[in-house]
Amino acid sequence: MELLKQRIRQDGKIKGTDVLKVDKFLNHQMDVKLFAEMGKEFKRRFADCEVNKILTIEASGIGIACIAAQFFDCPVIFAKKNQTKNIAGDVYTSKVESFTHGRIYDIIVAKEFLGPQDKVLIIDDFLANGAALMGLIQLVRDAGAEVVGAGIAVEKAFQPGGDMLRAQGVRIESLARVKSMNEETGVEFVD
Amino acid sequence: MELLKQRIRQDGKIKGTDVLKVDKFLNHQMDVKLFAEMGKEFKRRFADCEVNKILTIEASGIGIACIAAQFFDCPVIFAKKNQTKNIAGDVYTSKVESFTHGRIYDIIVAKEFLGPQDKVLIIDDFLANGAALMGLIQLVRDAGAEVVGAGIAVEKAFQPGGDMLRAQGVRIESLARVKSMNEETGVEFVD
Repeated sequence: MELLKQRIRQDGKIKGTDVLKVDKFLNHQMDVKLFAEMGKEFKRRFADCEVNKILTIEASGIGIACIAAQFFDCPVIFAKKNQTKNIAGDVYTSKVESFTHGRIYDIIVAKEFLGPQDKVLIIDDFLANGAALMGLIQLVRDAGAEVVGAGIAVEKAFQPGGDMLRAQGVRIESLARVKSMNEETGVEFVD
Repeated sequence: MELLKQRIRQDGKIKGTDVLKVDKFLNHQMDVKLFAEMGKEFKRRFADCEVNKILTIEASGIGIACIAAQFFDCPVIFAKKNQTKNIAGDVYTSKVESFTHGRIYDIIVAKEFLGPQDKVLIIDDFLANGAALMGLIQLVRDAGAEVVGAGIAVEKAFQPGGDMLRAQGVRIESLARVKSMNEETGVEFVD
């Protein structure tokens, strides 16, 4: 998606060869006009999938998922990273290893919100090692629901998550696929 | 806002006399059509305020804030609850006591996204003791920006946060103000 690539070139900040900060428009400050264009593009790519639920994970996937859901005319669920007092009872749960934070955490979704009737589009801001996405896919499958695919804003294509999951048959649509990056020369995209 | 009150009566779950679960439409599964109506109502109430930035806090404020921002035509920032490796450098920070989780945590916003030019509307899903809202107000004031007010989905009017902050001159617009609740008799709203 050219608009997103342009924005990454303009406002993304590269640290070393593997950290891409998109705080200015994607996951700290959020440009909801850009999100609307991304949502339209996700709808175009998954138009044939009868999506009736969008699943994301707190926190930085939520804004993109909610704006996108307006084009799919469906509700959003966000998986929570920690069990709180206010979510008791029946939940689906899986484990995610965070490379950013250097720890393993549980993600949970209440059972009442996912079931065999659901065709689920997973939306997230980043795909790198695929750990969060694998955890989300597991939750959907545990619920007996169908994963129609994953809509990702930025894929770090030089990390293994995207290729590994595509090899398993998961449909992944990434709006910007970063082939490599470098503080001097900037970001190079796949294609 | 009658639509939100009706939805709380229909889908809210009461535990004891002080826990109101709105997981089905507000802060776990999210009804983005309802959020659009809430966003319009926030815009109606704060139409005269020249809002140029919306501030919320992860995680459950983000969806409401992003949908509302479409009506204000401005970006959203969400305050983060934990400092991660990817946010280094200059941040505003304040402390928030969580009654739900029984701990005190830091919230942070990168300095580059808030400044004296900003007229900030704070949006959140719940207002009870006012701890999160006080922390967010502090961040905005530390940045030299103006708090034009707070747009809240559900205020627990029987807890002190709303009245305390109104007494300090903060403009608070809550779409549903819960006067009391009870597992047998349901929710009673202010007005």
